[in-house]
Amino acid sequence: SEKLWSKMDDFVRRLIKLGKDDPKKIVHAIKVGLTITFVSIFYYFDPLFDGFGVSAMWAVLTVVVVFEYSVGATLGKGLNRMLATMVAGALGIGAHRIATLSGHTGEPILISVFNLIVAATVTFVRFLPKMKARYDYGLMMFILTFCLVSVSGYRDDEVIHMAIKRLTTVIIGSCASVIMCICIWPAWIGVDLHNQIATNLEKLGNFLEGYADEYFKVSVDDQDGRSKDKSFLEGYKSILTSKNSEETMANLARWEPRHGRFRYRHPWKQYLKVGTLARECAYKIEALHSYLRSEIQTPPEVRNRIVEPCTMISKESSKALKELATTIRKMTRSSIPDIHVANSKAAAENLKSILKSGLSKDVDLLLVVPAAATASLLLEIVTCTEKIAEAVH
Amino acid sequence: SEKLWSKMDDFVRRLIKLGKDDPKKIVHAIKVGLTITFVSIFYYFDPLFDGFGVSAMWAVLTVVVVFEYSVGATLGKGLNRMLATMVAGALGIGAHRIATLSGHTGEPILISVFNLIVAATVTFVRFLPKMKARYDYGLMMFILTFCLVSVSGYRDDEVIHMAIKRLTTVIIGSCASVIMCICIWPAWIGVDLHNQIATNLEKLGNFLEGYADEYFKVSVDDQDGRSKDKSFLEGYKSILTSKNSEETMANLARWEPRHGRFRYRHPWKQYLKVGTLARECAYKIEALHSYLRSEIQTPPEVRNRIVEPCTMISKESSKALKELATTIRKMTRSSIPDIHVANSKAAAENLKSILKSGLSKDVDLLLVVPAAATASLLLEIVTCTEKIAEAVH
Repeated sequence: SEKLWSKMDDFVRRLIKLGKDDPKKIVHAIKVGLTITFVSIFYYFDPLFDGFGVSAMWAVLTVVVVFEYSVGATLGKGLNRMLATMVAGALGIGAHRIATLSGHTGEPILISVFNLIVAATVTFVRFLPKMKARYDYGLMMFILTFCLVSVSGYRDDEVIHMAIKRLTTVIIGSCASVIMCICIWPAWIGVDLHNQIATNLEKLGNFLEGYADEYFKVSVDDQDGRSKDKSFLEGYKSILTSKNSEETMANLARWEPRHGRFRYRHPWKQYLKVGTLARECAYKIEALHSYLRSEIQTPPEVRNRIVEPCTMISKESSKALKELATTIRKMTRSSIPDIHVANSKAAAENLKSILKSGLSKDVDLLLVVPAAATASLLLEIVTCTEKIAEAVH
Repeated sequence: SEKLWSKMDDFVRRLIKLGKDDPKKIVHAIKVGLTITFVSIFYYFDPLFDGFGVSAMWAVLTVVVVFEYSVGATLGKGLNRMLATMVAGALGIGAHRIATLSGHTGEPILISVFNLIVAATVTFVRFLPKMKARYDYGLMMFILTFCLVSVSGYRDDEVIHMAIKRLTTVIIGSCASVIMCICIWPAWIGVDLHNQIATNLEKLGNFLEGYADEYFKVSVDDQDGRSKDKSFLEGYKSILTSKNSEETMANLARWEPRHGRFRYRHPWKQYLKVGTLARECAYKIEALHSYLRSEIQTPPEVRNRIVEPCTMISKESSKALKELATTIRKMTRSSIPDIHVANSKAAAENLKSILKSGLSKDVDLLLVVPAAATASLLLEIVTCTEKIAEAVH
């Protein structure tokens, strides 16, 4: 039982840490609780209950299922659910009407055939990547409502009433969720995407800012006992695998209405483009990073010949990327990044001419290889940064 | 309307292509349709209906929501749903009992407080990454059932009956889905993961197999008019961003029972390890690929000095990776990959000694840089391949 206690303890610690790191998540949890409580009032008050009966439970159910953390996800699910319930309800009533024509024995058979066809077709459509990205939930709800309405018709002749009751309660639940989600401390996924793209550029910038000092071991000289924080060298790693999360965020962001400085049809695709370029740059940085820890190290006297242009490239690219991140965050246009890009291009030309003149004829080439590769990667990062600067504008 | 028609046409074409590419998806759609039809029989037959009443609809609902393409996902959802319904149903009954002690006016207030606390707490717990990965659906079902049972108690004193009916129908729906999913042409996600990891190694191998010929332009000589298929040069790209999908697959695969040559506790984590190493190798290949299209090209006479060891490294690494893919597919142990790894290491030593002796004193270093960087990347790929070989065993 001591093991159980320590597990429980660990669990609670994680929860507390999660809450401290992101208080907005606690707010979200309370918002969900309040909305559920609010919607369940329909069940308690007699005048309201008489209108809906047991169907009032569907409203509670809708809130539990639809209410997501971000506005985009909640709106997407809510709209999907309402639309699907409406269309499938109408079709379900139609199917029931047609089936009743064939008498009490024929009805279940005909309904079963309808259900089989609709469920199989829609399930297959859900596999289409485009459908899956935006309407997956709606298609599932479509099957659900169609089967529910058409099958219920066998026991309850008032299918139309049933379908309308279901639609109303679903609308009440969805709207309550969406309103609560938007009005109290909303979490816009568009803002998250916007910030993530800017943060990614900053992470690249942080790496490049400290990289030259790290590679040319400048920092060794001014060491004063304490070990330096080198987390900036690892920050870029999260960018390598960020493709899926960025795409999901862009898909959800498209559901969001105008908010803050974001229009309804904000160019989310442009963010994905900048994200892709940042990822390409991160691949180069991954290669640079591996030369930091390489077994074969170029002797300092050879490195010193390229220290100046390399430092210049990495500092100026870093400044350009950080300035680009700032222009994204502030949503402004600025010519400062272009100046830094121009500086880094000048440094690149300088580096090329040093390489042209030959690094050192005395040292064997094997030892020069890592420095040469590093130089060549830095030249490519200059090109990458330029492309990012173009995409941001 | 012509535009609408062409859109419809496009949509149908996509569907047909999807079905041709993967007929298993059509089978899945039909399986879902059949299961829904089967479960809805509970609603049609009087003796069965009298037992369940309108609750019989919950079984249909469960099938629609739980039945996923892969066995792992279906089992995971089904178990989550059954367990959550059981525990939350019991707690809901308890909450209802406590609340009734406070009279007809106090009851809804107390129930509302319980709901608020439970919904908020569980919603917050859903944010924990470990919980999200495996129990997200169960936690949502927990909130749903708890609210449903405790709130229903206000109108229907037979809460216990209600909770049991709900549990039974959920069990029927889940079990029907799981049995159908496993028994007819099952799609094991564990097998998919297994194959994807092997395919990834093959893609790396395909690139390296053709890479040397491409880089050293050997193929230009024996050109006979038709352009060669170069898709093998792009295949590795999908590996760069496969992290999320591999992790999701491993999480779902853990739910799957013993099947074929896979045990219940198959070492899925080992696949993730091989996947991560393959991704690291793909980052190096991404860098190699960029030198293929580089602006600055090393003159052929310099390249020719390293053509032999580089070709050897890339061919032998390719063979090693492909053999490793085969041993993964066949689930055997083999020493053939080790031989190829050893060969590539020997070639690497050879390359190093050529580099040591200097490539060419006459050409300027700038032009030598890409070849030097390529050589250095190939040396790293040898190390990568060795690590992958270790992880596979």
